[in-house]
Amino acid sequence: MSHKTSRWALPAGIDELLPDQTRRIERLRAVLLRRFEVAGYDLVVPPLVEFVDSLLVGAGEALTLDTLKMTDGLTGRQLGLRADMTPQIARIDAHSMKTEAERRLCYIGTVVRARPDGFGGSRTPMQLGAELYGVAEVEGDLEIITLMLDLLQTAGVDALVLDLGHVDLFGELAAAAGLSEHAEDAVRDALQRKAATEMDGLLADLDLATEYRQGLLALCDLHGAWAETLAEAEARLRPVLNEAMKQALARLRMIAELIERRFPVVTVLIDLSELHGYHYQTGLVFAAYVEGLGREIARGGRYDDIGEAFGRARPATGFSTDVRDLLRFFTADAPAPVAIYAPARYDDEALMREVARLRAEGRRVVMTNRPPEGAAARLVPGTEATQNLWQLVGDTNHG
Amino acid sequence: MSHKTSRWALPAGIDELLPDQTRRIERLRAVLLRRFEVAGYDLVVPPLVEFVDSLLVGAGEALTLDTLKMTDGLTGRQLGLRADMTPQIARIDAHSMKTEAERRLCYIGTVVRARPDGFGGSRTPMQLGAELYGVAEVEGDLEIITLMLDLLQTAGVDALVLDLGHVDLFGELAAAAGLSEHAEDAVRDALQRKAATEMDGLLADLDLATEYRQGLLALCDLHGAWAETLAEAEARLRPVLNEAMKQALARLRMIAELIERRFPVVTVLIDLSELHGYHYQTGLVFAAYVEGLGREIARGGRYDDIGEAFGRARPATGFSTDVRDLLRFFTADAPAPVAIYAPARYDDEALMREVARLRAEGRRVVMTNRPPEGAAARLVPGTEATQNLWQLVGDTNHG
Repeated sequence: MSHKTSRWALPAGIDELLPDQTRRIERLRAVLLRRFEVAGYDLVVPPLVEFVDSLLVGAGEALTLDTLKMTDGLTGRQLGLRADMTPQIARIDAHSMKTEAERRLCYIGTVVRARPDGFGGSRTPMQLGAELYGVAEVEGDLEIITLMLDLLQTAGVDALVLDLGHVDLFGELAAAAGLSEHAEDAVRDALQRKAATEMDGLLADLDLATEYRQGLLALCDLHGAWAETLAEAEARLRPVLNEAMKQALARLRMIAELIERRFPVVTVLIDLSELHGYHYQTGLVFAAYVEGLGREIARGGRYDDIGEAFGRARPATGFSTDVRDLLRFFTADAPAPVAIYAPARYDDEALMREVARLRAEGRRVVMTNRPPEGAAARLVPGTEATQNLWQLVGDTNHG
Repeated sequence: MSHKTSRWALPAGIDELLPDQTRRIERLRAVLLRRFEVAGYDLVVPPLVEFVDSLLVGAGEALTLDTLKMTDGLTGRQLGLRADMTPQIARIDAHSMKTEAERRLCYIGTVVRARPDGFGGSRTPMQLGAELYGVAEVEGDLEIITLMLDLLQTAGVDALVLDLGHVDLFGELAAAAGLSEHAEDAVRDALQRKAATEMDGLLADLDLATEYRQGLLALCDLHGAWAETLAEAEARLRPVLNEAMKQALARLRMIAELIERRFPVVTVLIDLSELHGYHYQTGLVFAAYVEGLGREIARGGRYDDIGEAFGRARPATGFSTDVRDLLRFFTADAPAPVAIYAPARYDDEALMREVARLRAEGRRVVMTNRPPEGAAARLVPGTEATQNLWQLVGDTNHG
């Protein structure tokens, strides 16, 4: 590869969008933003870079490793390139828009990840999402999940699997069992990987009461069809269930039942080992999967505590997805507009008027003295017999 | 400032857009992209980050200092955050879309600058622009300038001043005078600042033939109304005019005349000391100014050589502007949609159908059990006498 050629190259996992893709993305973007608008969600645009402190509020190690950092020459502080927009939206809710009322915000924008997102994945997903603040009740979870499923269906994602989880089940069990922070992290990590043998070993070392050990181990198995899994959870966790855990299970049941009824093409599963990667989740979590994509197509959940870091804790839930993933399912056509070619004679008043008129009608008019061979639609000088000085010829694609 | 409060803070010159602004920006964005589309320009989306080598192709010191850099953990190479999208579009034209035909590309996206853009300026402008490849003739310059002025007027910028310059006048003079690269840089720098005394001193040290010294000094003075300035340029530069300089002056005259005729509200000036900041320009350059903005509102010019760095030189010209600057002039209203409030009863089939129906009509329906006080438009349970189970009441804003 010569030096000149290598200058063309983009870093691994970072790509650009060419016209055939942007036409489809623009169309999908408009459709999706319209769905947000009619559902009451207002668009905000957080900055691409912020102080690292703000970007990583409430975030775990995963997001920290995902965030590219640089030094700001102007302030001498560390800047980060956003790798996830959810903490930014929480900051906006906490700071820029003080209100105790419910708040519905949506966003679309590129995020940049230091590491590729899964095997062969992009480092520059176009994140699209919605966040709901101020609704602690189950209606908040239902609103966000319903909105996510509506959006996915609008984009053309049909049959999908919805995984529901609840981080309180693990959290409450770990607290009741008296796990240290360090032990809790290690067990959580093994649980997320469904590494039952490893978990068993970790728990054996910790000298826990049998019921807590069995309860924590049970979480590893508790995934599958929602009704059966919830029934099994209630049976296996019975010795250790406290009020918070009972409420978590009740909320999962309520949501699973209702989503199954309203979205017959969605398969609802429960996965009690799913705690998500970015740590800030606090209650119900969920992820949507679709065949042919090796990772979730959308995910979200509660993160009621995150605003506290900005001085204002309040209920929060939301979801996000990658518009580029959605694009694979979006079948609506966005063909290149048929161009009319006109000579580049900027001093011909009659021609310029005709060009302006056609463009005002929404027609694409390219002014050039080198129209491509075979260009059918052209503006040509009229004859004396014609009323109009310039005539459109060969334009078969439009009326 | 407490720690929690400081987490709210954004770095100087970096800001976010809240719903009142995004509604207007989305509207302006749609209008501007529509103008590009009908003029034959296809949208491309270059990446936010690239290898620094690619981002800084053909760029001078200014762009280098403007570009925030970070190390890519995946490749070990230096990444840069784009501070100007024009070199990226040139790379796309040279690499991703091989064709000898004319190519019209447009783009919109945030760029990030290490330094604020002028006094109190933003470090995260939303750059919007268009680039035309493959047209070396004056028609290329006319197309881009016309498109820029159309766009500015569409955005609501009325009276404006268009400054025209041509870097060949200085370049040819410096070459004919035999200036070293170092001397040329120093003189160019003084010329751009219109620092006549400093320039005089620099030139005196260089021991140039009198006519070159006077020619270079003359460039400092040659700015003002186009007809007078061009006449003066022809007189004062006569002893040193070569063919390329004559062509540059002829092209300036042709463009000034035509733009003045087609855009009566535009004041056309010539400024032969204007060589632009980012160095890659090669021919005609221009900038648009409007009262109340302490820097240009749009600018552009030729950069025929830039593609060579990617292995493919061809004629190129374009312009760019900052959508946030345009927003100050865009007066079209984008009011918040009037919301209809419905109770959050996701298990009520009749209600959900009614909500879906209203949303499909483009109405904003917020589902909440805590509607704001004074909310007029609401969906309320109907009476037995009503045919429809749910009724819309208090909706005075729509038919």
